[in-house]
This record gives sequence, C-alpha cells and structure tokens, in this order.
Amino acid sequence: MPAPHVPVEIREFAEPDLPPGGALLRTALSEVCGTDVHLWHGRLAGVPYPIIPGHVTTGTLDAVRGTLTDVQGQPLREGDRVAFFDVHRTCGRCLACTAHRTPTRCPSRRVYGITDSATEGLFGGWSQKVYLEPGVVVARLPEGVSFEAYIGGGCGLLTAVHIIERARLVLGDTVVVQGAGAVGMSAAALARKSGAGQVIVIGAPESRLDLSLRMGADTVINIERSTPEARLEQVLALTGGIGADVVIEAAGSARAFEEGVRLARNGGAYVIAGHYTNVGDSTINAHEHINRKHLDIRGCWGSEVGHFLRALRALERYHDEIPWHLIGARTFGLGQINDALAAAGALTIPKALVDPWRANDL
Amino acid sequence: MPAPHVPVEIREFAEPDLPPGGALLRTALSEVCGTDVHLWHGRLAGVPYPIIPGHVTTGTLDAVRGTLTDVQGQPLREGDRVAFFDVHRTCGRCLACTAHRTPTRCPSRRVYGITDSATEGLFGGWSQKVYLEPGVVVARLPEGVSFEAYIGGGCGLLTAVHIIERARLVLGDTVVVQGAGAVGMSAAALARKSGAGQVIVIGAPESRLDLSLRMGADTVINIERSTPEARLEQVLALTGGIGADVVIEAAGSARAFEEGVRLARNGGAYVIAGHYTNVGDSTINAHEHINRKHLDIRGCWGSEVGHFLRALRALERYHDEIPWHLIGARTFGLGQINDALAAAGALTIPKALVDPWRANDL
Amino acid sequence: MPAPHVPVEIREFAEPDLPPGGALLRTALSEVCGTDVHLWHGRLAGVPYPIIPGHVTTGTLDAVRGTLTDVQGQPLREGDRVAFFDVHRTCGRCLACTAHRTPTRCPSRRVYGITDSATEGLFGGWSQKVYLEPGVVVARLPEGVSFEAYIGGGCGLLTAVHIIERARLVLGDTVVVQGAGAVGMSAAALARKSGAGQVIVIGAPESRLDLSLRMGADTVINIERSTPEARLEQVLALTGGIGADVVIEAAGSARAFEEGVRLARNGGAYVIAGHYTNVGDSTINAHEHINRKHLDIRGCWGSEVGHFLRALRALERYHDEIPWHLIGARTFGLGQINDALAAAGALTIPKALVDPWRANDL
Amino acid sequence: MPAPHVPVEIREFAEPDLPPGGALLRTALSEVCGTDVHLWHGRLAGVPYPIIPGHVTTGTLDAVRGTLTDVQGQPLREGDRVAFFDVHRTCGRCLACTAHRTPTRCPSRRVYGITDSATEGLFGGWSQKVYLEPGVVVARLPEGVSFEAYIGGGCGLLTAVHIIERARLVLGDTVVVQGAGAVGMSAAALARKSGAGQVIVIGAPESRLDLSLRMGADTVINIERSTPEARLEQVLALTGGIGADVVIEAAGSARAFEEGVRLARNGGAYVIAGHYTNVGDSTINAHEHINRKHLDIRGCWGSEVGHFLRALRALERYHDEIPWHLIGARTFGLGQINDALAAAGALTIPKALVDPWRANDL
Repeated sequence: MPAPHVPVEIREFAEPDLPPGGALLRTALSEVCGTDVHLWHGRLAGVPYPIIPGHVTTGTLDAVRGTLTDVQGQPLREGDRVAFFDVHRTCGRCLACTAHRTPTRCPSRRVYGITDSATEGLFGGWSQKVYLEPGVVVARLPEGVSFEAYIGGGCGLLTAVHIIERARLVLGDTVVVQGAGAVGMSAAALARKSGAGQVIVIGAPESRLDLSLRMGADTVINIERSTPEARLEQVLALTGGIGADVVIEAAGSARAFEEGVRLARNGGAYVIAGHYTNVGDSTINAHEHINRKHLDIRGCWGSEVGHFLRALRALERYHDEIPWHLIGARTFGLGQINDALAAAGALTIPKALVDPWRANDL
Repeated sequence: MPAPHVPVEIREFAEPDLPPGGALLRTALSEVCGTDVHLWHGRLAGVPYPIIPGHVTTGTLDAVRGTLTDVQGQPLREGDRVAFFDVHRTCGRCLACTAHRTPTRCPSRRVYGITDSATEGLFGGWSQKVYLEPGVVVARLPEGVSFEAYIGGGCGLLTAVHIIERARLVLGDTVVVQGAGAVGMSAAALARKSGAGQVIVIGAPESRLDLSLRMGADTVINIERSTPEARLEQVLALTGGIGADVVIEAAGSARAFEEGVRLARNGGAYVIAGHYTNVGDSTINAHEHINRKHLDIRGCWGSEVGHFLRALRALERYHDEIPWHLIGARTFGLGQINDALAAAGALTIPKALVDPWRANDL
Repeated sequence: MPAPHVPVEIREFAEPDLPPGGALLRTALSEVCGTDVHLWHGRLAGVPYPIIPGHVTTGTLDAVRGTLTDVQGQPLREGDRVAFFDVHRTCGRCLACTAHRTPTRCPSRRVYGITDSATEGLFGGWSQKVYLEPGVVVARLPEGVSFEAYIGGGCGLLTAVHIIERARLVLGDTVVVQGAGAVGMSAAALARKSGAGQVIVIGAPESRLDLSLRMGADTVINIERSTPEARLEQVLALTGGIGADVVIEAAGSARAFEEGVRLARNGGAYVIAGHYTNVGDSTINAHEHINRKHLDIRGCWGSEVGHFLRALRALERYHDEIPWHLIGARTFGLGQINDALAAAGALTIPKALVDPWRANDL
Repeated sequence: MPAPHVPVEIREFAEPDLPPGGALLRTALSEVCGTDVHLWHGRLAGVPYPIIPGHVTTGTLDAVRGTLTDVQGQPLREGDRVAFFDVHRTCGRCLACTAHRTPTRCPSRRVYGITDSATEGLFGGWSQKVYLEPGVVVARLPEGVSFEAYIGGGCGLLTAVHIIERARLVLGDTVVVQGAGAVGMSAAALARKSGAGQVIVIGAPESRLDLSLRMGADTVINIERSTPEARLEQVLALTGGIGADVVIEAAGSARAFEEGVRLARNGGAYVIAGHYTNVGDSTINAHEHINRKHLDIRGCWGSEVGHFLRALRALERYHDEIPWHLIGARTFGLGQINDALAAAGALTIPKALVDPWRANDL
C-alpha cells in the first residue's frame, strides 16, 4: 500500500538476514480488516506509507535463527504452524506499561501492518513471508485449529477477548452486542461461552445476523428493519423490563453509543470497543443515562499478549462449536487485493482473507 | 412546602404516637441543599406535595418507644445526639437490592424530605421534630463532632463517601474535582485523606475555591476566569502531560462532562456524580475520549447505609482537620426559609442551614 | 428430627393460618445434604431441635394469601411450580448487610430446615407442606426445569454459583475443583460454562468422577488411587508446569486446603468453600504457598438471593446439557428417612432426595 | 559478601565502561535490610556469591552515557539526586508479565544486591558507585526528599505501597498491622494516609512502637507484653466487637498468620506480606477462619515499577508528616558493615544504613 487512496501494488523484497532470535514466517493467511480499509482511506494519523498491510496473520515457520520459544519457554521449530502477536515493542518501562497497567496505551508499541513501514522490512501479512523480529510473541496453533479458524477470528477475536475481560460477566447476565462484524460476532460467541444467560446481537445485514446465531447469539435484531425505540422495547421485554446487564459496543457508530446507554440496566456495564476511528460525536444525557443509572462505561483499546494467548485457548476449546472459519468468507490472492479492500469497505462480506501465495487469477 | 413555586409555609402538626421501635428527633440543624431548590422549582417528578423538606438532619433524641439501637446493636437513648440515614424503606428483596447490589436503585426506597408527604407525618428536617419510623438507621454523633460539622458535611458528604468508593483511588493519584459545592468540597477533602497525590478543584466563585483549599485541595482553578483549553493545559502541566488519574464530576453541568473526559488520562477513571437533575445533553466523542482512552466512566447515584456510617467515621477522624462546619455558611429560622431557598438557589453561599427552633426575627 | 443421634420421627402438624403475603408449598422434592447429616450428628451449634430438616425444597404453590410476587414483581399463583430461597430474615440493616456487603454473615439470618424450630412452624422440606412466610423469596421454576433437576442442583448449586462469582474466572483459565460431591460437581459444571479452558476434578468414588465428566469436567483424578505428589505432577503437566489459575475447594477436608495451595499457580486464586463444619486444622506454609506465590485465597460462605436467582437462570439455560437430575441418585419417602441419612452419611450416593408424599414401603 | 557466614570484605573494582543508556551512581546511602541478613545466613537459594549487597540505594548521578530519561521521558543529568528501581530485567514477555499480570513473579527478573554477582559488575549499593545498566528505571528524588528519608523508607516502603494496593482500603476501615519493622511501619503510615479509620500496630520492642505512633498508628500493642487472647480482645474492643476490616501481616512469623485470621472481621481482608523467607508452618482452621469468615487472604510478593513511582510520590507529599528518616537509625561505613549486619540481625535498630564513603573509624 504505497499511500492512501491509490491502488495497492505488488512489490518484491529480498528476504532479510535474520538476527539471533528472529524468524521468518511463510504466510498461510492474513486478513483485510476494517483497519486496513481505514488505512487505505488515510483515516489513521502517522502511518509511515508505504506499508505492507495485514496485522493479524498465521502460517508456518520458514526459518528460525537461533532459539525461538513460546511464552512458556517451549521451543518453536521450522515447519511449526504458528501465529504471532502483531503488537510488538511494547516497552515495559513507561507509565502506561507499569504504573497504569494499560500496555495497550504504551507510546512505543508498534503494530505489524500498520505502524511499521515497508522500508523497514517485511512487517505485514500481505507479504508471502513475514519477518518476526526478536521479541515478537509467537505461539504454536493448537491442534485442530485450522489457519482458516484462526484468521476468521483474527484481530476481532483478540479484541473480543479483551472486551469479555472488561465486561466482567456474571453467570446468567443478559448481554447485548451492538454490531455484527468480526468483533461483535466473536464477542457474542465468547459471552455465550462465558456464562451469559442470553446474548442479543443488534446489527445487519441479515447474513451476518444468521452467522451471529450460529456463533452463539440467542436473539438477533436487524438494525435496518427496526427503530431504536423498538429495539429498546425488545431488550426490555427480554429482560423483564430491567435492561441488559452488559452492553458491548462493537459497531463503531455514534448512534450506537447513544442507544447503548439506554439498553443497559441500572447498575449495569457498557463496554465501548468499536470506535477505533472517529465517526463523530454522540449526544449523551449524563443525568438519565449515567448518573441516575449508576452505569459503568468502560473503554476498551487494543489487545495485550494475554488476550492473544487466551484467544488461542478459546480457539482450541471451541473451534468445533464456534464457526470462526465462516467469518472469513472469501480468500483473495495478491492480484485481487484491491477487490478485497473494496469488498471489505462495502461490508458485503464479514471479512476478506488474503493468501499471498494464491494464484492471482482465481 | 405546599407545592412548587409557592412560598414555603409554617404549619403545625400534632406529635405522632410512636410505634415500638419508633422515635422522635428534636431537630438541631437541617439543611437547604440543591435538591431542595429543585423541589421548590418542581424539577423532580412524583413528589407528593405538600412535603416537609430537609432530608439530612441532626439533633437530639426526644422520645424513644421501646428499644432503639444503632447498626452495631448499641442502645440509643433519649437525649443522645444522633443523626439518621434519610433513605429508608429500601426493600432488601428486589433485584436492585440483591442480585444487582445497587440498593440506591431500589424502587421501594424513600427519602426523608423528598418522597414522603407531609400528610403522612413528620418526615423532614425543616420541622422542629422529626419522626424516625422503625427501621430507620440511627447513629450517635461521634464525640467531638458538632451539629454544625455534621450538617456542614450533610448530604454532600454522604455522596462524597460514595464517590470515593467508586473512584478506587490508588496512593499518589492525581484527582480533579469538577465543582466546588458541598459535594465537590467533601469529595476533594476525602480524596486528599484517601491518599491522593494531588487534588485539583475546578469551580467558582472564589470564596468556595478558598474554602476548597482549606478542605484539602492543592490547586484550585476558577472556572469563570479560565477557558476549557486553559484548564486542560493546566491539568496536563500538573501531571507531566499525562492527565488526571481520576476525575470526579460534582458540577451538574453538561459542559463539565465534556471537559472531564479530556482531563482524565489514558486508562483513568471518571466518576459522574453531579447530575441529580437533567441539565441537558453533552456531546461526547466515543473514539477520542472513551475507546482510545481506555477510560472508565462510573455513574454514582445516591448513598447506602454504609456510606452514612463511613461519613460518621470520617467526621470523627477528621473534624479537626477538615472544616466541614464552614460549608454551612449561614443558619436560617423557619421564618426565613424562603430567603434560605433564594440564597441557596443563587449559590451565594455554599449551603444554607435550617434551625427550626431559631427565633424568626434573627 | 427430635434431637441429634436419635431416629427421625414422622409427626403431624396442623396447617398454619396464612398471614397476608404468606403461602403454603406442597413439597415435590427436598434433599438430604451433608448439612443434614451434620445436624443429625449434632455438629452444628445452636440448632433449636426438634427441627424439620430439608432446607432446599421445590414444589407447587398450594395456597397463597393475598399477593405473592417474585423479585421482579410478577404475581405467583396457586398451582405454580416454584422454588424458594431458604435463607430468610436477613435484616438488611446490620453492618454485614450494609457496610460490609456480606449478607451471608448477617446475624439475624435464618435458614429453613436448620435454624427454625419445628415448634415455630413448617420450616423444612421434609414436610409434606412448607410454610413460606411473608418476605421469603419465591420464584417460578423456568419452563423445562424439572423438580428433579432443581433439587439435583439443590443447595450445592447455589453454593457453586457463589463460588463462581468469587472465582472471577477469566476466559481460558484452568480450574481445579477439589471434591466431587454436589457442590464440586456443580462448581465444575459452571466453571466449564463460564469459560474455563479446562476443568480438573479431584475426588472419589469413581461413580462420582464419571458423573463429574458428564457434568463438564475435562479430567478427573481419583483421590483414592493417587498421592498428593502425583496429583500435583498431573496438574502441572496439564498446565505446562504453571499450576491452576483457579482452585476451588469443595471437599471439606483439612488435607484439601494443604494440597490446594500447591496446585494453584503464582498469582492464582483459591476459593475455600467446602469447610461448612470444622474438620480440623491445616498446616500451611505462608512463605511458600501464599506470600511468594502472591496467591489470593477467598473464603466463600453461604448464598445470597442473587445466587438463588442466577442458579435458576443456569438451570433454565443448561438443563439439557448439564445432568443435574442425576446428582439426586435416589428418592426416599418419609418412612425411609433414616435410611436416607445413613446413605448420605456413607457417601454411597451423591445426594439423597426426599419426597414426603411417597409411599413409605417403596 | 564473598559467601554466607563469612565476614563481608572490602574489595576494589574498576569503574565500568558505560554502554549507551547506562549510568553510574555515586552512592549516598544504601541499607541493611532483613534480606541482607538472610543473605549473610545463606537462607536464600540460588544467590551467586560473591555479591555486593544493598538493593535499595540512592545517590547522585556520577556519569551518564548518552541519554537517560525517567519513565515520563524527562532527561536525567549528571549531578541529579536520584533513586532507581532495584528490580530489573523483568522480561515483559512471559506469562507472569503478560497474561497473569504478576511481573513480580517473572522468572527473568533480577534484583540489585541479591541476584547479580559481584563478578558481573557493580550491582549493589554497598559499593561507592553503582552501575545502572540500560533499562533500569531511574527517577529524580522529589524536591525536599532527603537521601535519609528515601532510604529510611527503602525497600520496606516499596513493599508497603504494594501492600496498600492489595489491601484496597475503604474510607474508615480499621487496619491492624502485624509487625513494627520497616515494612510494618511504612504500611501503617500509608494506611493512615489512605483513609484508615484507625491503625493498630502489633509489634516490639517499645522503641519501634513509639516510632510507629509517630508514623501514624493510633494504637500500638506490645507483642512481648501481651497474649494472643489479650490482643484479640483489644482489637475487638476497638472495633465494637467486629474485628479489623483489614489485617496486614508484616511480621514474618508463623504465629502471626495464625493470629491474623482471628483479628480480621467476617468478610474482611488479610494481606500476607512478611514471609519473605521460610519461617515454618502455620496451623490454620479453614472452617473457622476462612470459609465461615468469608475472608480474603492476599499474598503480596515484591514490588513493581509502579510501586516505586508511587513510593516517590508518597515521599514527596508526606515527608514532612511521616518521619521516614527516623527508621534508618544508624549509618555505618564500609569498615563497619559486619557490625551493621549484626545490629540488623539482632533487631536492636529498625534499620541500619550504609554510607560507603563514610570514614571507617567513625
């Protein structure tokens, strides 16, 4: 991606000389997520174009120099099916990393496919090979977890793991998820598996709602065929007039925030996790919807290593029950990347996958 | 107070026959708080006028029928200097009281001076005697705590105790308090005593800011002589560019909410506690100020018995160091109640006190 | 149960006159839990013998005087299949109920079948009819939840709901449950449904371990056929050498405590919930197993209304997946109660049920 | 310290060549803490003797190569009065550092003066100059904070900051601190400043109890002149028969643990922070003191960067009110180190300080 608004190009780079502890990944699958669309539209500040997009990626270890281990110290070897945590260079020394315990706000942190320039190396999954610099957290894919399942979950699954941690669900809670994209569907699935009494997903289009039901939602509400008043009424009806114990915003819409504070019950919790870009302001009445409601609102930014590791455990445990592989609806080769971006931007499919080895004419 | 917008009248009622466990309090001091002004302006829904205002009140036990004990089972006797928790009839059985652990949202709960009609009995502190029905939580004033100190703290102190609990301060935190009224000043004082590294109060007029400094604030910012930009800059300058660890909204202004989300640091906490009435909508950018900031926003409604008891402990410990008695700037007799309401409404004094035994012509 | 150590007798009582808000339950099923065995052995202090045992009980509303509603205000009617929360008269005013937020430690609280004498009324489920005094929390059994499923869960399920709340599981956590009785099995089942990455149950005999697997355990370890060292080794092997994130003690053995602190990982959590009677002292090394381990140990006593309500939601959601009805292995009539106590005391069956209408000679 | 049990020797080392980001500290004061006595007695495993003891140390920056900044990015310069966080090389990548959020359990972590051999460099404060390797967290001493105050607080203050965080005090809580050493006194002082309603210190000898009162304790109990029963009775008397809301163990005695579970109230919290070495087993009744008490016990190991930073804030705010400088009762030169160790071991003084520049014959 040489710059915003211009077509993505295929370029060739030399394979890097690996330093000790470095490795090279042969990409199996990467993804086109909403962030990539934003990158293409130039909506993120400070991106060092040209970049190789593709922050969440999985594949096979192609080359390892010296010793590479997972976080539990187990050695990883060439040929292993692995994934890696795309957030790297988190410093571990700044206020955010230490006193504040919010490493996702570390100013040194960098993200594959977003903040690393193509001039610095193969730091993105839309490349046939990805450079894993020393210190990147790498983990073996659990047995039975396919590349398709891992990348279907993708960055949305990592975000969802963080959301569920912030939500602090109690057994039997009613959870409303706003948004039926990759984040919302994984959040709904994990809420179900974390003891939610019922899971209600609000979103569109119908195909995503159908998939949300297969992922674990009990009820879906089509946002295109309902009014906010009707949705509130339905949530109240499903909760004996009380409202939702937990609302999760994974829609990235200013209107969703305004609606979410109404859907939550008195003393409930509301996790705001879908506003990764600025989509404008919301109008909120602090008296009615926060103060008198005794509401907890919790912003949720990015993912930590722990969320990556727990995402892998969730995949291991639930890959037979939660059809993550269906989120990645269609796979594109490098020659079709611009089509993939267009499809992702038009929201016609939940998520586009990238297989940089795929023949271009498929 | 026969109805909204009409002058408060002095009426005589017969002393009630006490049921077992009931008591009669001889009022020493009650208060005119912001809520009373709202009551007078008819801004609260469902109030059963005529009412006897005065929800937080202190005095001497005048008569006790049978046994009256405090929460630790210690007997209370006629002549004891006491205070009582104005919130009563919290049911202990509903969802709010049990599963949700938010008793301040119990639908059965009633509040002296607000939700109990004068036709039902002496349920307000602007009466010379107040009826303490069985079940009301009564506590002896700790030694050394004057009526003036208790009522200077008043309902604002109880709210502040709840705020501090919700704020979950960590030693050394920078705390910004928005609002220099009775709630804000007590919140600032308690934040200081709870280990805050620095306490910054934003408010007006100058006299309240001076009192805030005496209550424990390290820095005060006059909101009438500064712009939001200048205030943000000052808070950043005082925190090494980071922002406040905790922001407490005790201003009851829609603009305060908009400003508070900017003053908090990444991963910080923001307690919304000043919006007891609807003062209009705020405009909030969920991306910039909640999601990306990984911010916690916590609504805080009313007080629980525990907050009342902890307020008494705070008064016992700090009454020499925190000049709560100075918040109640002026005491009015029953004949001057309409002046008291006017003074409280005009914010010319931090809080007006009511002594219903005071000669009217003073 | 006229007194400890003597046979339980069948006695007849008159049906009570119901006060307004009172009701009479026609017992369908009650249970013989470990507490009943302790009652029989006189191991609990202050029990007002004679008592009608049977604290957790379900059945049909036989008579209602006036209005009876559930906690959400929905009316309950004669003929409804209901359960009720056996803990009543929690005062809502004492320190435990208010400031400490530990209502299970309220000194006024009483428990059906344990602290209420038979001389006071039909306060136990081994009676054909049970008196539901005003204020007792009653709830309709959700559709599809059989009496057998409810009572199979019984008091163990309520305790397990409390345990899971105290455990604060995070998605993917490894949970070890010590004890394969009614509490342990329900705790294992709920841990699985709350997102545990793996659930390991340590207990005996084999039949209970088999049932634990059906309830949701991934791994079971027979405590009679293994040493503590072997069990620790196995838990370490199953966790990559780390230890369990959460250990739940539901065994009621002094040795279990000693073992549990070893099974937990550094920074893990250990919920102690099985010591409802004094079974002797444990020997604990604070350096090795608490301080250096940075371990959280959380005692867990009794249940609150919220746990009762969440237990019903869990039954509603999972009754098809978790075979609670199999825990109540055998049902006894009143004429067989002494056999039931003997069977429960000998631990030959997970739980004995009581149907006081059952013909005695079956 | 060449090895356990042999006299400490004075040796000379060459000044190191500094790498970029490295620095050299001219020691002003270091300390002899309990750990150093344990090191001398060979009670810690895996120590790479010979070592230069002295883990917490303060002084003046003697030389800086390249850029050295504090955690907020402010440059530090030669001549600055600084302290540094003695725990270094915490990896930021392992399970403890990431998923478990317990960086004090990171296996890579090393501690100045304890785990770094003298053969590797000047890694201890009993040296005239200390090597600050790149990555060590260095901070300027706040204005007004003397070397004596910083080192009087020392490692005990850092531990105390961690303890207070784990204790989660609520305004008005009664806090009992077991132990009147450097950790206990700082914990008592910080509990007082964090809103404790009363602080009770149990310890000996009388001189330490006197200092504890000056540090902020309200009540002290001499453990040498009282029985456990008498102490329990006194704590109950001071809490209306309830027990302490929070108990902090900073005594390092097996008996203290046994006593502490009795002193805590139902639903209270108990932080175990004094067992840095194995002093034998405690006998605990899980029924009476954990399960039925619904008690929280929280182990507390080591300190994190955030605790170091908050300790500095506490020193800045309270150095006039809390006489930390009095904890370091006596300063020793290098020639008197063996006397210092003996004095610290005999507990005749709260803490011995080391000034390696001090003339030996003083």
